[in-house]
Amino acid sequence: MTRRSPQEALERLLTRQRELAHIGQARSLMAWDLQTMIPPEGVPARARAVATLAAYGHRMLTDPETDADVAVLEEAARDGRLSGPPARMAVVLRREIDRLRKIPEDRYRRFAELTANGEAVWRRARAEDRFADFAPLLEEIVGLLREFVERWGYRGHPYNALLDVYEPGLTVARLDFLFARLEEGLTSLLARIERSGKEIPDAFRGGPFPRAAQEAFLREVLEAIGFSFARGRLDTSAHPFTMGIHPTDVRLTTRYAEDDLAYALYSAVHEGGHAIYEQNLPEELEPYVLMSAASLGVHESQSRFAENVLARSAPFWEYFAPRLVAHFPSLAGRTPEEFFRAANRVARSFIRTEADEVTYNLHVLLRYRLEKDLIAGTLAVRELPEAWRAEMRKLLGIEPPTDREGVLQDVHWSHGMVGYFPSYTLGNVYAAELLEALLRDVPDLWERVRVGDFAPILSWLRERVHTQGNLYDPPELLERATGKAPGPEALLRYLEAKMAEVYGL
Amino acid sequence: MTRRSPQEALERLLTRQRELAHIGQARSLMAWDLQTMIPPEGVPARARAVATLAAYGHRMLTDPETDADVAVLEEAARDGRLSGPPARMAVVLRREIDRLRKIPEDRYRRFAELTANGEAVWRRARAEDRFADFAPLLEEIVGLLREFVERWGYRGHPYNALLDVYEPGLTVARLDFLFARLEEGLTSLLARIERSGKEIPDAFRGGPFPRAAQEAFLREVLEAIGFSFARGRLDTSAHPFTMGIHPTDVRLTTRYAEDDLAYALYSAVHEGGHAIYEQNLPEELEPYVLMSAASLGVHESQSRFAENVLARSAPFWEYFAPRLVAHFPSLAGRTPEEFFRAANRVARSFIRTEADEVTYNLHVLLRYRLEKDLIAGTLAVRELPEAWRAEMRKLLGIEPPTDREGVLQDVHWSHGMVGYFPSYTLGNVYAAELLEALLRDVPDLWERVRVGDFAPILSWLRERVHTQGNLYDPPELLERATGKAPGPEALLRYLEAKMAEVYGL
Repeated sequence: MTRRSPQEALERLLTRQRELAHIGQARSLMAWDLQTMIPPEGVPARARAVATLAAYGHRMLTDPETDADVAVLEEAARDGRLSGPPARMAVVLRREIDRLRKIPEDRYRRFAELTANGEAVWRRARAEDRFADFAPLLEEIVGLLREFVERWGYRGHPYNALLDVYEPGLTVARLDFLFARLEEGLTSLLARIERSGKEIPDAFRGGPFPRAAQEAFLREVLEAIGFSFARGRLDTSAHPFTMGIHPTDVRLTTRYAEDDLAYALYSAVHEGGHAIYEQNLPEELEPYVLMSAASLGVHESQSRFAENVLARSAPFWEYFAPRLVAHFPSLAGRTPEEFFRAANRVARSFIRTEADEVTYNLHVLLRYRLEKDLIAGTLAVRELPEAWRAEMRKLLGIEPPTDREGVLQDVHWSHGMVGYFPSYTLGNVYAAELLEALLRDVPDLWERVRVGDFAPILSWLRERVHTQGNLYDPPELLERATGKAPGPEALLRYLEAKMAEVYGL
Repeated sequence: MTRRSPQEALERLLTRQRELAHIGQARSLMAWDLQTMIPPEGVPARARAVATLAAYGHRMLTDPETDADVAVLEEAARDGRLSGPPARMAVVLRREIDRLRKIPEDRYRRFAELTANGEAVWRRARAEDRFADFAPLLEEIVGLLREFVERWGYRGHPYNALLDVYEPGLTVARLDFLFARLEEGLTSLLARIERSGKEIPDAFRGGPFPRAAQEAFLREVLEAIGFSFARGRLDTSAHPFTMGIHPTDVRLTTRYAEDDLAYALYSAVHEGGHAIYEQNLPEELEPYVLMSAASLGVHESQSRFAENVLARSAPFWEYFAPRLVAHFPSLAGRTPEEFFRAANRVARSFIRTEADEVTYNLHVLLRYRLEKDLIAGTLAVRELPEAWRAEMRKLLGIEPPTDREGVLQDVHWSHGMVGYFPSYTLGNVYAAELLEALLRDVPDLWERVRVGDFAPILSWLRERVHTQGNLYDPPELLERATGKAPGPEALLRYLEAKMAEVYGL
């Protein structure tokens, strides 16, 4: 065989990857539609079509030609003849190829079809509070994932193989260390808050708050913090999510409660953080498959930053409280301080997505423990509801009265996402690190927010995170952005400071 | 090379065609989204992705392996060893392959990208009434189509090559004959109507008719005539359309005017006719690529049947008038007769989609004449606005005051659909033929409609048309359904009878 030149190999890969990126956009649209628009009986045919597109991607990436071309780039990178995006592209493709070629196409197709059907099954089971209707699907998903993990191989705990999918390099060892420190710090903080005896009224409750007015307010908030409606949409779905089809087409969803303004708002701002990241990904890196987030943990750092650091801050409410009141005259007289404090009420509760910042990571820890045991095979799917209740008692001292408020509350497992939940805690950790760095670079940050000037935040995050796409693995990206390796202490400092303000600790 | 067995060839083709069908479903969803949901700046990236999927389809169908497999089936069919769907599949694939392989992939991709971008360009140009903003796009589209026609080759008029895409076997010679007879019959009927001097009040005008109430009424009508919302959606778009992604996922759109109930209603029922056809296509024929309409003319026969034969009939309004009044109390007192007559008012007007049944085919004739000249090269795109006005004067004696009401009114050219418009007239012709046959088989049809029983119509059309998919070319399908070859006389008889009733001719 003639020796391939790196230039030829790169050209061929760019052509193939552009095609794969476009097929990926079709798959993203199909997935968005499955969660928002599809008529109920359309789901099975759609799942088959999604599986076909997935199988096609599998075939393209496991093609020996692709492999040989990537090997040429890898060699050139080792010799120092290749650097920058093409060299990084080889790293990212190599990981993906090695993962895919260990999974036979038909198993991969089956997983794609199963998980495309999954949300509809979960939605019905949750609506009827029947875990038994969801269990067979979840059993097959967990079975396939355990098979994949064995095929991939792993060092240490088998769950490491799944963590690596969402956060390259992340391990159970690192997470155990992180969660141990967080559990200790957060449990102690929670105890101090509860000992303070302070009751904070929920200024967002009451209503009825008509949906159209809520949406108008959300659009105002999302635009202010940097979301472009010329390049995106806001819709509703059972579980809020963001789909970045392309930086010019990014769609987020929320859901509304007519008696609770916080419900739609904080979902939408969380998704808004994801969406702003997606809208600012570097288009020029698309052919290199690097027009994507650095990891899901980094992705969650953007959503948790928007939702918590920004939209649960006092300056945010100084600016937005009068605007909220303008949309809902029945709130007249409520002060920014009241909204700020209501947004930061701490209470043991069942639903992760509505949890306060202090207990939130305990919810994540619960899922992390269950997922590890599911993948290790020491916990069966049918045992999940009881295991959930037991862990909830241990971590938060409460027990959900129904599975809807327990094991059935999250959509992720129905999408086949096991190993994802730790991303939320990583997101919180990274967001706190980013805030400290941001405040060093923009010391008058909060004065700017107070008057509705969100530009300095957006431009700092764009420069340090968004436009970096997938050029670096998360630890390197974070170090470049903040000057140091990320750890749990910044998050604990941030929460201590905020709770001191809210609860006067 | 080893001789391929028909069984092996068929198996391989079925596998490949299933993949192509799934890719086609992705393309359909992308096209639906382009017209309904996509954020404005998302269009160019989407157009590139659509073009990639189109190019992929081109590559799969022009693959020599596909060609060889189809040849094996063709030979087996000639020898009588193969019949039914597999034999028909070979016929349909052969046509498509022969057409595709004469177009280089890059030209095909360019056409797909151009026409995916097209609607957004048309929509802006129409909104601002600036034909000059649309002309460059249309020039490139017409240029590419003229190139394709030359590459394909044709007998007789070059426009025949495009007609054949939408209606296999249709020719300028056949259309000239058909239109000549229709022009004569319709012009004479129009003259008699105008001489009658009768003025019919427009019972659908007034309002304001809130959009939500209109939509509720539309949903009631669509469900009654056979559309399933479990397998479909109703949305809004600049130009109403139907997208059948799969029989379990069929989406139609309409648009609303708050002062005119007929505007949304007749668009929705027209699209409903298309949509019911799509929902009843035979799923078992999907792998044979025969889960599709017999032709676009047959497709339009279903929409025009629903819109005109059914929803502009007196029995339809006997059933629906009280229901309409229930949604709009301001209409209280209006009789079924008033709605029936208003739905059949005849008047020379500018907009085809709102035209009455008598003048409608003259609008189609206008486009047919212009398209023939465009493809023959005897008319330039820049000359279109003036040519449009001149033809309008000749055919209808009126001249649109703006291009919005003239040459810019239709979306089809922006989608690259030249050769499509005659389908509407064929649809009218076929619908009248189907009505005559249906009345022979179900003599109490109108008594059933009068009490809201649409089942006999639906089941007859399902059996004779919908579930036949693409098993037969249109003339054969129609002959099997009606017992005779279709011609213009049934349509003229139908219109004479209706106008006699409405105008007392």
